Amino acid sequence: MRDDRYIVIMAGGRGERFWPQSRRNRPKQLLPIVGEEPLLAQTVRRVLGMVPAANVLVLTNADLVAEVARICPGLPADNIVGEPVGRDTAAAVGLATVLVRLRNPAASYAVLPSDHVIHDEASFRLVLERAFEAAESGDELVTIGIEAAFPATGYGYIQRGEESMRLGEMPVYRVRRFVEKPALELARSYVQSGEYYWNAGMFIWSAASVAAALSAYVPDLWAGLASIEQALAAGRPLAEVLEEQYQGLRKISIDYALMEKAPNVLTLPGVFDWDDVGAWPALLRHLPADAKGNVTRGNALVVDGADNIVVGSGEHLVSLLGVSGCIVVHTEDATMICPRERAQDIKLLVGELAKDQRLCGLL
Amino acid sequence: MRDDRYIVIMAGGRGERFWPQSRRNRPKQLLPIVGEEPLLAQTVRRVLGMVPAANVLVLTNADLVAEVARICPGLPADNIVGEPVGRDTAAAVGLATVLVRLRNPAASYAVLPSDHVIHDEASFRLVLERAFEAAESGDELVTIGIEAAFPATGYGYIQRGEESMRLGEMPVYRVRRFVEKPALELARSYVQSGEYYWNAGMFIWSAASVAAALSAYVPDLWAGLASIEQALAAGRPLAEVLEEQYQGLRKISIDYALMEKAPNVLTLPGVFDWDDVGAWPALLRHLPADAKGNVTRGNALVVDGADNIVVGSGEHLVSLLGVSGCIVVHTEDATMICPRERAQDIKLLVGELAKDQRLCGLL
Repeated sequence: MRDDRYIVIMAGGRGERFWPQSRRNRPKQLLPIVGEEPLLAQTVRRVLGMVPAANVLVLTNADLVAEVARICPGLPADNIVGEPVGRDTAAAVGLATVLVRLRNPAASYAVLPSDHVIHDEASFRLVLERAFEAAESGDELVTIGIEAAFPATGYGYIQRGEESMRLGEMPVYRVRRFVEKPALELARSYVQSGEYYWNAGMFIWSAASVAAALSAYVPDLWAGLASIEQALAAGRPLAEVLEEQYQGLRKISIDYALMEKAPNVLTLPGVFDWDDVGAWPALLRHLPADAKGNVTRGNALVVDGADNIVVGSGEHLVSLLGVSGCIVVHTEDATMICPRERAQDIKLLVGELAKDQRLCGLL
Repeated sequence: MRDDRYIVIMAGGRGERFWPQSRRNRPKQLLPIVGEEPLLAQTVRRVLGMVPAANVLVLTNADLVAEVARICPGLPADNIVGEPVGRDTAAAVGLATVLVRLRNPAASYAVLPSDHVIHDEASFRLVLERAFEAAESGDELVTIGIEAAFPATGYGYIQRGEESMRLGEMPVYRVRRFVEKPALELARSYVQSGEYYWNAGMFIWSAASVAAALSAYVPDLWAGLASIEQALAAGRPLAEVLEEQYQGLRKISIDYALMEKAPNVLTLPGVFDWDDVGAWPALLRHLPADAKGNVTRGNALVVDGADNIVVGSGEHLVSLLGVSGCIVVHTEDATMICPRERAQDIKLLVGELAKDQRLCGLL
């Protein structure tokens, strides 16, 4: 248990692909999409034991703070920070840096997404422990790379360079470059080379190192964050300061702002199972299927059908006859039906709701 | 308005093909599947004006009597008759004959199904009027034949013989034979011949003629009915008598028992629109479709999909993305999804519910 280490969990996403279960005020990370607990609660539980609960911060949307507090009763209220508006990940990381520095300028911290599923928690914690060690041994920015299991086009990639050090049996590589989501052919060549990892948005660094990097690569953003830091140091309430100043920060991702530019980046291979639960078909990887490949949650009946994903709610029965390869999600006020291959397009459907005054209450 | 004519509406079916909207205690004829009123209420309204309300009887299942009374507030309570068990159509017709004879031995009456849709009510009433005239002009059993619009394999057929008479401009044919549901090739030849009508289960006859025919062709059944008639004539309550004796009647259809055997059968061509609303695709014939052929009732949203039938309930939104040719029916406690071509098989799904103790409450 290291009290000079912090964990900052990024819980700002909307997760429209999980509509109608996910809503604006109840996004994916607050739902038990996989498992019995909300994904965020799983993420918090996964790191408790490495750091005290007092050192776990959650950054979320201001309108979700109360719900996050309800889901994470073990965290101090002050540790749940609401962004009044979304300003992308560089501003969020900058804010995290400010908040950690104010508590302990000598601390290091990890940035973790709130909505990923990792079952092999022991391996995850070991890699995270080593990543902290790597970050604390110098001024490098450390990331955990996920072994690219297939040529995914939905993730950014990290190309590793030479080995920088070994911590126990674990190699730590210098990063040659961060690359954006590739086309399929390019993704294939990445996977074949064996030199590329998926970028899962997990970063570990000392507050001092990331502050220096932000100051060097996005000085305008850092100036805004320094102003926030000053106001907080002067004792002004966090919510008030953010309401006033956060919206003025430049909107840019941490990958663009920092990771693609900084020369001092290291990566550790994430030798644990990992799933970003990007859309409903993720359930196929986590729930048992029947003999015909149907995966169901809740009260469901499939007759003459295969390879369906059916998610019910309460006692309501969702029944399929002669239907295959479909996703059906029922909630109290809305039902959604689409073929599995359209799972990514559910956000289009959500876009249609937004256009219709009668329906936008379902967003 | 003829008070020596009666209408007996047969409302005993279960309509499992309309699950989950139809249930054992709320079958198809009690639902507004097409139109705003329950199909039974439409059927009653269609004949009022031809006979007094006091001369309209409804035969239904004993457990549906209260609901039928609620749906048909204009009918005297005594006119809603509940069968304690279903004994097929010959017993039901026999019971109707007994009930009509007790009120007026010289009366004629029409047997009409409760769950068919006919929009052209003026033509329907004209044909029915002529059918009564034909029945009252002798001792013939009269049926209304529906022009066979396509080679349906789901209906029985009536082959006409020579013209027997003309009533106004309306020909009345002798019936050569009743035939059961044919295979497709045979059905095609029937339609091509121009001599065949669909058997829609509409019969018109004098109480005396049908009593004589039942007595001649199903004497055992008629003996049982005569015993019921005797008990009623002695003043015993109808429900009590039926509870005691109805179950003992032979179970046989009126087509087998009578229509296929009697030589004195006439048919009038039903020159009106007619739809037996056999399954959900019937909605395509009665509700407007959008530009892509989607027919929806209630709160529905179809994105990138065509030729769907979507039936919602209340405010609940049923949304489809990239789905075509499907039937989706939502009710408060169950949702059903199947391809349009499986509409007839919904009864299989209902059969699956019956096997599962958790689910049989949804029957």
